[in-house]
Amino acid sequence: MFKIKIYTVGKHKESWLNQALEEYTTRLKSHMQITWHLSKTLPDLSKEKDYIALDPRGELMTSEDFSTFLHKQLETCRSRLTFIIGGAEGLPPAIKSNANALISLSKLTFTHQITRIILLEQLYRAAEIEKGSAYHK
Amino acid sequence: MFKIKIYTVGKHKESWLNQALEEYTTRLKSHMQITWHLSKTLPDLSKEKDYIALDPRGELMTSEDFSTFLHKQLETCRSRLTFIIGGAEGLPPAIKSNANALISLSKLTFTHQITRIILLEQLYRAAEIEKGSAYHK
Repeated sequence: MFKIKIYTVGKHKESWLNQALEEYTTRLKSHMQITWHLSKTLPDLSKEKDYIALDPRGELMTSEDFSTFLHKQLETCRSRLTFIIGGAEGLPPAIKSNANALISLSKLTFTHQITRIILLEQLYRAAEIEKGSAYHK
Repeated sequence: MFKIKIYTVGKHKESWLNQALEEYTTRLKSHMQITWHLSKTLPDLSKEKDYIALDPRGELMTSEDFSTFLHKQLETCRSRLTFIIGGAEGLPPAIKSNANALISLSKLTFTHQITRIILLEQLYRAAEIEKGSAYHK
């Protein structure tokens, strides 16, 4: 079982967002345990050893590349990995320089809500790609 | 008032998807009228004159570029524009070759549901960028 922690700034106030996140969290249950850390401002991350930062200047990947990347990271990090969702202006330099990698979901700017859904769906897709299922054909 | 038509394959069965789409449709009401055309397979598009095809091989843009692109298209097409959402494998060559432009939301593959939310939010963001509001800072 992989353990994924996701740090993000902002609240889950929209009910549609909660429903969407719940749907993918349930689907992921047998592969990955997802823990969300929500706060108004970015918390102290000095104790986080292995994390991936989502940043506008990060690497753009295909879903296949992301699956390979994710599974390599999970192997190296003994099945535990953290994601930090940055804002539109990106993350502070100290957080970026300590990250295992910087990735970007798109050249477009997304809301925090949409970013959370995309990240979760990509984690699910990555697991399905690894399994070779029909989800990602 | 701009009139935007969006063709997509598949159903809106998830209630969270409907809620999310409704939220952005309401926000867009004063700028753009959105009409969805859902069907099981891609319909006959021979009568559509001006359309943008979403395709994995399309151009990747920032939200600022998309706003400029969209408003130029709307100017040329007398305020009426159509978007066609292709599947993961892209659209048939005939649909692509007749499109005003091919664009891609990301190198990642998204579900139809998530693509619809992203497109709608980008249309809203494009309108806010054009207005110079604080939504896209």
